[in-house]
Amino acid sequence: MAKVHRLICAVLRFATAGAAAAAAILMVTSRETTSFFGIEMEAKYSYTPSFIFFVVAYAVACAYSLLVLLVPQGSPLSRLALTTDVVLGMVLTGAVAATGAISEVAKNGNSHAGWLPVCGQIQDYCNHVMGALIAGFVALSVHFLAVLYSLHVVTDTICPCH
Amino acid sequence: MAKVHRLICAVLRFATAGAAAAAAILMVTSRETTSFFGIEMEAKYSYTPSFIFFVVAYAVACAYSLLVLLVPQGSPLSRLALTTDVVLGMVLTGAVAATGAISEVAKNGNSHAGWLPVCGQIQDYCNHVMGALIAGFVALSVHFLAVLYSLHVVTDTICPCH
Repeated sequence: MAKVHRLICAVLRFATAGAAAAAAILMVTSRETTSFFGIEMEAKYSYTPSFIFFVVAYAVACAYSLLVLLVPQGSPLSRLALTTDVVLGMVLTGAVAATGAISEVAKNGNSHAGWLPVCGQIQDYCNHVMGALIAGFVALSVHFLAVLYSLHVVTDTICPCH
Repeated sequence: MAKVHRLICAVLRFATAGAAAAAAILMVTSRETTSFFGIEMEAKYSYTPSFIFFVVAYAVACAYSLLVLLVPQGSPLSRLALTTDVVLGMVLTGAVAATGAISEVAKNGNSHAGWLPVCGQIQDYCNHVMGALIAGFVALSVHFLAVLYSLHVVTDTICPCH
Protein backbone atom coordinates (compact mmCIF):
# COMPACT_ATOMS: atom_id res chain seq x y z
CA MET A 1 0.00 0.00 0.00
CA ALA A 2 2.83 2.39 0.96
CA LYS A 3 4.62 1.52 -2.31
CA VAL A 4 1.50 2.26 -4.40
CA HIS A 5 1.07 5.55 -2.47
CA ARG A 6 4.70 6.53 -3.18
CA LEU A 7 4.29 5.59 -6.86
CA ILE A 8 1.10 7.68 -7.30
CA CYS A 9 2.79 10.66 -5.59
CA ALA A 10 5.93 10.33 -7.73
CA VAL A 11 3.93 10.13 -11.00
CA LEU A 12 1.83 13.19 -10.07
CA ARG A 13 4.88 15.22 -8.98
CA PHE A 14 6.97 14.35 -12.07
CA ALA A 15 4.01 15.16 -14.37
CA THR A 16 3.52 18.52 -12.60
CA ALA A 17 7.25 19.30 -12.87
CA GLY A 18 7.31 18.40 -16.59
CA ALA A 19 4.25 20.46 -17.50
CA ALA A 20 5.42 23.40 -15.33
CA ALA A 21 8.86 23.35 -17.01
CA ALA A 22 7.17 23.29 -20.45
CA ALA A 23 4.95 26.25 -19.45
CA ALA A 24 7.90 28.34 -18.19
CA ILE A 25 10.08 27.51 -21.21
CA LEU A 26 7.29 28.22 -23.72
CA MET A 27 6.68 31.62 -22.10
CA VAL A 28 10.39 32.56 -21.90
CA THR A 29 10.96 31.64 -25.56
CA SER A 30 7.91 33.57 -26.83
CA ARG A 31 9.37 36.43 -28.84
CA GLU A 32 8.48 38.03 -32.18
CA THR A 33 9.69 41.03 -34.13
CA THR A 34 7.33 42.62 -36.61
CA SER A 35 7.06 45.91 -38.46
CA PHE A 36 3.91 47.99 -38.19
CA PHE A 37 3.56 50.99 -40.55
CA GLY A 38 7.33 50.87 -41.03
CA ILE A 39 8.06 50.90 -37.28
CA GLU A 40 9.88 47.82 -35.94
CA MET A 41 8.08 46.29 -32.94
CA GLU A 42 9.36 43.56 -30.65
CA ALA A 43 7.12 41.44 -28.45
CA LYS A 44 8.60 39.43 -25.58
CA TYR A 45 7.35 38.10 -22.26
CA SER A 46 9.45 40.47 -20.10
CA TYR A 47 7.41 43.48 -21.35
CA THR A 48 4.37 42.27 -19.36
CA PRO A 49 4.54 41.96 -15.52
CA SER A 50 1.88 39.17 -15.52
CA PHE A 51 3.99 37.07 -17.89
CA ILE A 52 7.09 37.51 -15.65
CA PHE A 53 4.97 36.37 -12.67
CA PHE A 54 3.88 33.34 -14.77
CA VAL A 55 7.49 32.34 -15.53
CA VAL A 56 8.62 32.72 -11.89
CA ALA A 57 5.58 30.83 -10.53
CA TYR A 58 6.03 27.88 -12.93
CA ALA A 59 9.80 27.71 -12.44
CA VAL A 60 9.20 27.52 -8.66
CA ALA A 61 6.45 24.89 -9.20
CA CYS A 62 8.84 22.75 -11.26
CA ALA A 63 11.61 22.87 -8.64
CA TYR A 64 9.18 22.38 -5.71
CA SER A 65 7.48 19.34 -7.32
CA LEU A 66 10.85 17.57 -7.61
CA LEU A 67 12.25 18.66 -4.20
CA VAL A 68 9.10 17.67 -2.28
CA LEU A 69 9.68 14.02 -3.31
CA LEU A 70 12.78 14.05 -1.09
CA VAL A 71 10.80 14.89 2.09
CA PRO A 72 10.65 11.80 4.35
CA GLN A 73 7.09 10.50 4.94
CA GLY A 74 5.68 11.26 8.39
CA SER A 75 8.26 13.99 9.17
CA PRO A 76 7.11 17.48 10.33
CA LEU A 77 8.13 18.76 6.87
CA SER A 78 5.65 16.32 5.34
CA ARG A 79 2.79 18.04 7.19
CA LEU A 80 4.08 21.43 6.04
CA ALA A 81 4.14 20.11 2.46
CA LEU A 82 0.32 19.90 2.37
CA THR A 83 0.07 23.61 3.26
CA THR A 84 2.72 24.62 0.70
CA ASP A 85 0.88 22.45 -1.87
CA VAL A 86 -2.30 24.47 -1.29
CA VAL A 87 -0.36 27.78 -1.48
CA LEU A 88 1.36 26.69 -4.70
CA GLY A 89 -2.02 25.72 -6.19
CA MET A 90 -3.29 29.23 -5.44
CA VAL A 91 -0.15 30.92 -6.87
CA LEU A 92 -0.36 28.87 -10.10
CA THR A 93 -4.07 29.71 -10.47
CA GLY A 94 -3.16 33.38 -10.00
CA ALA A 95 -0.44 33.13 -12.68
CA VAL A 96 -2.79 31.44 -15.18
CA ALA A 97 -5.58 33.95 -14.45
CA ALA A 98 -3.35 37.05 -14.78
CA THR A 99 -1.77 35.72 -18.00
CA GLY A 100 -5.20 34.74 -19.34
CA ALA A 101 -6.62 38.21 -18.57
CA ILE A 102 -3.81 40.00 -20.46
CA SER A 103 -3.97 37.47 -23.34
CA GLU A 104 -7.71 38.12 -23.66
CA VAL A 105 -7.04 41.87 -24.03
CA ALA A 106 -4.24 41.14 -26.55
CA LYS A 107 -6.65 39.00 -28.61
CA ASN A 108 -9.88 41.01 -28.38
CA GLY A 109 -8.76 44.43 -27.16
CA ASN A 110 -11.00 46.57 -24.95
CA SER A 111 -12.81 49.26 -26.94
CA HIS A 112 -14.03 51.02 -23.78
CA ALA A 113 -10.45 51.56 -22.59
CA GLY A 114 -9.15 52.28 -26.10
CA TRP A 115 -6.86 49.22 -26.03
CA LEU A 116 -6.57 47.73 -29.51
CA PRO A 117 -6.08 43.98 -30.08
CA VAL A 118 -2.45 43.26 -31.01
CA CYS A 119 -2.54 39.53 -31.84
CA GLY A 120 -3.22 40.29 -35.52
CA GLN A 121 0.30 41.83 -35.78
CA ILE A 122 2.13 39.30 -33.57
CA GLN A 123 0.30 36.03 -34.30
CA ASP A 124 3.28 33.72 -33.55
CA TYR A 125 3.92 35.42 -30.19
CA CYS A 126 0.24 35.08 -29.20
CA ASN A 127 0.20 31.38 -30.22
CA HIS A 128 3.36 30.80 -28.17
CA VAL A 129 1.80 32.46 -25.11
CA MET A 130 -1.38 30.38 -25.66
CA GLY A 131 0.82 27.24 -25.68
CA ALA A 132 2.39 28.34 -22.38
CA LEU A 133 -1.09 28.94 -20.95
CA ILE A 134 -2.27 25.44 -21.99
CA ALA A 135 0.87 23.80 -20.49
CA GLY A 136 0.34 25.93 -17.36
CA PHE A 137 -3.26 24.76 -17.11
CA VAL A 138 -2.16 21.11 -17.46
CA ALA A 139 0.48 21.59 -14.71
CA LEU A 140 -2.12 23.26 -12.48
CA SER A 141 -4.61 20.42 -13.06
CA VAL A 142 -2.05 17.70 -12.24
CA HIS A 143 -0.88 19.65 -9.18
CA PHE A 144 -4.53 19.94 -8.10
CA LEU A 145 -4.86 16.13 -8.44
CA ALA A 146 -1.79 15.79 -6.14
CA VAL A 147 -3.45 18.13 -3.59
CA LEU A 148 -6.74 16.17 -3.83
CA TYR A 149 -4.86 12.89 -3.35
CA SER A 150 -2.99 14.38 -0.35
CA LEU A 151 -6.28 15.56 1.18
CA HIS A 152 -7.84 12.13 0.59
CA VAL A 153 -4.84 10.43 2.17
CA VAL A 154 -4.60 12.85 5.11
CA THR A 155 -8.31 12.55 5.92
CA ASP A 156 -7.69 8.78 6.01
CA THR A 157 -4.97 9.61 8.58
CA ILE A 158 -2.10 8.39 6.37
CA CYS A 159 0.83 10.70 5.52
CA PRO A 160 0.20 13.53 3.02
CA CYS A 161 1.38 13.23 -0.57
CA HIS A 162 5.04 14.07 -1.24
CA MET B 1 -12.85 22.05 22.69
CA ALA B 2 -15.59 21.40 20.12
CA LYS B 3 -17.25 24.71 21.09
CA VAL B 4 -13.99 26.68 20.61
CA HIS B 5 -13.50 24.92 17.26
CA ARG B 6 -17.04 25.87 16.14
CA LEU B 7 -16.50 29.47 17.30
CA ILE B 8 -13.19 29.87 15.41
CA CYS B 9 -14.80 28.42 12.26
CA ALA B 10 -17.85 30.69 12.56
CA VAL B 11 -15.71 33.83 13.05
CA LEU B 12 -13.51 32.97 10.04
CA ARG B 13 -16.50 32.16 7.81
CA PHE B 14 -18.46 35.30 8.76
CA ALA B 15 -15.36 37.47 8.24
CA THR B 16 -14.79 35.88 4.80
CA ALA B 17 -18.46 36.38 3.85
CA GLY B 18 -18.38 40.03 4.97
CA ALA B 19 -15.18 40.91 3.12
CA ALA B 20 -16.30 38.97 0.01
CA ALA B 21 -19.65 40.82 -0.02
CA ALA B 22 -17.81 44.15 0.33
CA ALA B 23 -15.49 43.22 -2.57
CA ALA B 24 -18.37 42.21 -4.88
CA ILE B 25 -20.46 45.30 -3.98
CA LEU B 26 -17.51 47.69 -4.41
CA MET B 27 -16.80 46.23 -7.85
CA VAL B 28 -20.45 46.27 -8.99
CA THR B 29 -20.90 49.89 -7.89
CA SER B 30 -17.70 51.12 -9.59
CA ARG B 31 -18.90 53.36 -12.39
CA GLU B 32 -17.76 56.71 -13.77
CA THR B 33 -18.73 58.90 -16.70
CA THR B 34 -16.14 61.32 -18.03
CA SER B 35 -15.62 63.33 -21.19
CA PHE B 36 -12.38 63.02 -23.12
CA PHE B 37 -11.74 65.53 -25.96
CA GLY B 38 -15.50 66.19 -26.00
CA ILE B 39 -16.40 62.49 -26.29
CA GLU B 40 -18.44 61.08 -23.40
CA MET B 41 -16.89 57.91 -21.95
CA GLU B 42 -18.43 55.55 -19.42
CA ALA B 43 -16.42 53.12 -17.31
CA LYS B 44 -18.14 50.23 -15.53
CA TYR B 45 -17.13 46.78 -14.36
CA SER B 46 -19.22 44.87 -16.94
CA TYR B 47 -16.96 46.16 -19.77
CA THR B 48 -14.07 43.97 -18.52
CA PRO B 49 -14.46 40.14 -18.45
CA SER B 50 -11.95 39.83 -15.54
CA PHE B 51 -14.05 42.19 -13.40
CA ILE B 52 -17.23 40.16 -14.13
CA PHE B 53 -15.31 37.01 -13.06
CA PHE B 54 -14.28 38.87 -9.86
CA VAL B 55 -17.90 39.76 -9.00
CA VAL B 56 -19.19 36.21 -9.65
CA ALA B 57 -16.32 34.59 -7.69
CA TYR B 58 -16.79 36.84 -4.63
CA ALA B 59 -20.60 36.54 -4.68
CA VAL B 60 -20.19 32.73 -4.68
CA ALA B 61 -17.55 32.99 -1.89
CA CYS B 62 -19.94 35.05 0.25
CA ALA B 63 -22.84 32.58 -0.17
CA TYR B 64 -20.58 29.52 0.28
CA SER B 65 -18.95 30.86 3.49
CA LEU B 66 -22.39 31.21 5.11
CA LEU B 67 -23.89 27.96 3.76
CA VAL B 68 -20.90 25.82 4.79
CA LEU B 69 -21.62 26.68 8.45
CA LEU B 70 -24.82 24.62 8.13
CA VAL B 71 -22.95 21.40 7.20
CA PRO B 72 -23.08 18.94 10.15
CA GLN B 73 -19.62 18.11 11.58
CA GLY B 74 -18.33 14.63 10.69
CA SER B 75 -20.80 14.13 7.81
CA PRO B 76 -19.54 13.11 4.31
CA LEU B 77 -20.32 16.69 3.20
CA SER B 78 -17.91 17.96 5.86
CA ARG B 79 -15.07 16.06 4.17
CA LEU B 80 -16.11 17.47 0.79
CA ALA B 81 -16.06 20.98 2.31
CA LEU B 82 -12.27 20.85 2.72
CA THR B 83 -11.87 20.15 -1.01
CA THR B 84 -14.33 22.90 -2.01
CA ASP B 85 -12.49 25.25 0.39
CA VAL B 86 -9.24 24.62 -1.50
CA VAL B 87 -10.98 25.07 -4.88
CA LEU B 88 -12.59 28.33 -3.70
CA GLY B 89 -9.20 29.59 -2.48
CA MET B 90 -7.80 28.96 -5.97
CA VAL B 91 -10.76 30.64 -7.71
CA LEU B 92 -10.51 33.73 -5.46
CA THR B 93 -6.75 33.96 -6.11
CA GLY B 94 -7.50 33.75 -9.83
CA ALA B 95 -10.09 36.55 -9.56
CA VAL B 96 -7.71 38.83 -7.62
CA ALA B 97 -4.84 38.09 -10.04
CA ALA B 98 -6.88 38.71 -13.20
CA THR B 99 -8.37 41.93 -11.78
CA GLY B 100 -4.93 43.01 -10.55
CA ALA B 101 -3.38 42.39 -13.98
CA ILE B 102 -6.00 44.50 -15.79
CA SER B 103 -5.83 47.23 -13.11
CA GLU B 104 -2.05 47.39 -13.54
CA VAL B 105 -2.49 48.02 -17.30
CA ALA B 106 -5.20 50.62 -16.55
CA LYS B 107 -2.80 52.43 -14.20
CA ASN B 108 0.51 52.15 -16.04
CA GLY B 109 -0.49 51.18 -19.58
CA ASN B 110 1.74 48.98 -21.74
CA SER B 111 3.77 51.02 -24.21
CA HIS B 112 4.94 47.90 -26.09
CA ALA B 113 1.34 46.92 -26.87
CA GLY B 114 0.26 50.54 -27.43
CA TRP B 115 -2.19 50.42 -24.52
CA LEU B 116 -2.40 53.84 -22.84
CA PRO B 117 -3.04 54.23 -19.09
CA VAL B 118 -6.66 55.29 -18.49
CA CYS B 119 -6.70 55.91 -14.73
CA GLY B 120 -5.82 59.58 -15.25
CA GLN B 121 -9.22 60.09 -16.92
CA ILE B 122 -11.28 57.84 -14.62
CA GLN B 123 -9.60 58.30 -11.22
CA ASP B 124 -12.73 57.59 -9.13
CA TYR B 125 -13.45 54.37 -11.04
CA CYS B 126 -9.85 53.17 -10.58
CA ASN B 127 -9.96 53.98 -6.84
CA HIS B 128 -13.23 52.06 -6.52
CA VAL B 129 -11.73 49.02 -8.29
CA MET B 130 -8.66 49.29 -6.03
CA GLY B 131 -11.01 49.24 -3.00
CA ALA B 132 -12.69 46.10 -4.37
CA LEU B 133 -9.25 44.53 -4.88
CA ILE B 134 -8.21 45.31 -1.28
CA ALA B 135 -11.49 43.89 0.12
CA GLY B 136 -11.01 40.86 -2.15
CA PHE B 137 -7.49 40.36 -0.83
CA VAL B 138 -8.75 40.56 2.78
CA ALA B 139 -11.50 37.98 2.01
CA LEU B 140 -8.93 35.72 0.34
CA SER B 141 -6.56 36.01 3.33
CA VAL B 142 -9.29 35.17 5.88
CA HIS B 143 -10.51 32.28 3.70
CA PHE B 144 -6.91 31.04 3.52
CA LEU B 145 -6.76 31.14 7.36
CA ALA B 146 -9.94 29.00 7.41
CA VAL B 147 -8.30 26.51 5.01
CA LEU B 148 -5.11 26.46 7.14
CA TYR B 149 -7.17 25.91 10.29
CA SER B 150 -9.10 23.09 8.55
CA LEU B 151 -5.85 21.46 7.44
CA HIS B 152 -4.42 21.78 10.96
CA VAL B 153 -7.57 20.26 12.42
CA VAL B 154 -7.83 17.49 9.84
CA THR B 155 -4.20 16.45 10.26
CA ASP B 156 -5.02 16.19 13.97
CA THR B 157 -7.83 13.84 12.85
CA ILE B 158 -10.62 16.12 14.06
CA CYS B 159 -13.39 17.25 11.69
CA PRO B 160 -12.48 19.85 9.04
CA CYS B 161 -13.53 23.49 9.49
CA HIS B 162 -17.11 24.37 8.52
